[in-house]
Amino acid sequence: MYPVKSYAVASAQHPLAPFSFSRRDLWPRDVLIDIRFCGICHSDIHQVRNEWGNSLYPMVPGHEIVGIVAEVGKQVKSFKPGDKVGVGCLVDSCRECPDCKDGLEQFCVHPVFTYNSYEKDGKTLAQGGYSNRVVVNEDFVLRLPPALPMDAVAPLLCAGITTYSPLRHWKAGPGKKVGIMGLGGLGHMAVKIASAMGAEVSVISRSRNKEADAKRLGAKHYYATGEAGTFEKLAKTFDLIICTVSVDLDWNQYLGLLKRDGTMVILGVPPKAPAVSAASLIFGRRSLAGSLIGGIRETQEMLDFCGKHGIVSDIELIPIQKAQESYERVVKGDVKFRFVIDMASLK
Amino acid sequence: MYPVKSYAVASAQHPLAPFSFSRRDLWPRDVLIDIRFCGICHSDIHQVRNEWGNSLYPMVPGHEIVGIVAEVGKQVKSFKPGDKVGVGCLVDSCRECPDCKDGLEQFCVHPVFTYNSYEKDGKTLAQGGYSNRVVVNEDFVLRLPPALPMDAVAPLLCAGITTYSPLRHWKAGPGKKVGIMGLGGLGHMAVKIASAMGAEVSVISRSRNKEADAKRLGAKHYYATGEAGTFEKLAKTFDLIICTVSVDLDWNQYLGLLKRDGTMVILGVPPKAPAVSAASLIFGRRSLAGSLIGGIRETQEMLDFCGKHGIVSDIELIPIQKAQESYERVVKGDVKFRFVIDMASLK
Repeated sequence: MYPVKSYAVASAQHPLAPFSFSRRDLWPRDVLIDIRFCGICHSDIHQVRNEWGNSLYPMVPGHEIVGIVAEVGKQVKSFKPGDKVGVGCLVDSCRECPDCKDGLEQFCVHPVFTYNSYEKDGKTLAQGGYSNRVVVNEDFVLRLPPALPMDAVAPLLCAGITTYSPLRHWKAGPGKKVGIMGLGGLGHMAVKIASAMGAEVSVISRSRNKEADAKRLGAKHYYATGEAGTFEKLAKTFDLIICTVSVDLDWNQYLGLLKRDGTMVILGVPPKAPAVSAASLIFGRRSLAGSLIGGIRETQEMLDFCGKHGIVSDIELIPIQKAQESYERVVKGDVKFRFVIDMASLK
Repeated sequence: MYPVKSYAVASAQHPLAPFSFSRRDLWPRDVLIDIRFCGICHSDIHQVRNEWGNSLYPMVPGHEIVGIVAEVGKQVKSFKPGDKVGVGCLVDSCRECPDCKDGLEQFCVHPVFTYNSYEKDGKTLAQGGYSNRVVVNEDFVLRLPPALPMDAVAPLLCAGITTYSPLRHWKAGPGKKVGIMGLGGLGHMAVKIASAMGAEVSVISRSRNKEADAKRLGAKHYYATGEAGTFEKLAKTFDLIICTVSVDLDWNQYLGLLKRDGTMVILGVPPKAPAVSAASLIFGRRSLAGSLIGGIRETQEMLDFCGKHGIVSDIELIPIQKAQESYERVVKGDVKFRFVIDMASLK
């Protein structure tokens, strides 16, 4: 067993606090990773606070993990000590269902999430990346692009793949007009990735506050829905809209911005299920779809793509002692655009 | 001008009653059609009663028109007197927009519908098929499969194309499991067409009442949602669901019946916009889409397909004097599966 230092919450009412536990000894195909950085995802906060109602405690959050391979199990072929690697939202799956066989493990009916999930034994709690080391089966370990700064790569493991996957699946690229709703952790990655894919990217936000950032990140256009006439002006404009905001909005207004055969992809769950008018879909043969992170193969493809295009997240690096207070800033949207924990601070 | 006999309504409060008017003289590319049969579509009733709030009176309903070419304009190349032809929901469009250029005239921003619509001059009311003759530009005239009975072909012009188009667009065919919600005018055509395309077809209805009909029409399976456990049993079953019912339903329950990457296509507008949970879409990367009749090229393709596979509508033939009372039976779902008016009754 490997002793581990971490920050965990003991319940939904507890703050993040130092927590010690052990990781399993290496099975033949396991990789031991010394964690260097871990991103803070809004879903960490939802789960720490049991806002999805399925939380398991004690909980070490964190699924945007990057680090260096320290040891490998006897049968590990893909990694060796010293390799720069990452771990995202999944650390195992059933390996046998159609989704696993298609490389879309995120849809497996028995996935093992990186934390707030039971390991395959059904009783050991998986614990996440706000910690100094992690043991993961090599099939769920990703290779990092060597030239990119590791701290800013960390958010690619969730925010990056969550936006890359639908952009690729719905064929963002040259000649396609892509609208990105919201410019937070997910939105800013979507802008960078869609632009690198060659699409003509617009950011759709409530106010003009984020216009300069949007343009700097690669957006060609910026539209503020708080301004009168925006929805009318943009009617039938986009081939693809990626909705990264999970507040209550009238989706029908945004569906009206799609061209014929356009698709609006939802990435987050708003508090209240929105009413969808059939007419919004029928006139223009439009689609409303959802997307969930991405598979392991696709996550590697995304990392390679980001390596090739020099794409990382815009981050604010913090010591782990500031993780708790950073949560309040995430909830307020007061971060450009992702907090990343420097694990060197975990003494 | 050609004198025309018809049945029309004078307002939303009036019943169908005999009405005389004139059709225009033939322009060079016009076709004069002696109407033999016209189907009764539920949308006739919505429009006669102004249930969509956009009705123009006097209104001669009817957009499932079949007949024989009587005369043609000087430049008409595709048709000659004696040809068996049909006219559906559209009699013209702008011809210049991207939708028209792609052969998807139903999405044109300036379509001319067969009735309850202004002609291109912006002032002449288009009048539909509950009449003995109609004048239509040849580009909007369809060629009927010669071997099929004309009366039972009539409903293909709306119910047929409205179901064929999404089945083709979302690739119903061998190896695909297709669920058809509802077994009325649209549903019974969807079952026949999807079966002929080679898909494995299931009918999803509230009760067992329509099971024998569904099987006879080509469905392999029949499921009654009124029976406990149906939604659980069918979870993740279908590649494609075609929703032909426009009553208030919980769409999320049906989205749960889709496999990963499955699509549910809505054809009708329910009274109240249903609440759609993002989770229904995100888990399984599912899509909710809409579809509207079909383009002219595709309508001809559908007719040729039906000719090849011997597909017609199951109809109840009525004299035009019974059209008004047939409306009550349509609203109650008391018809197997489409009323068709025999225009020989229009003296």
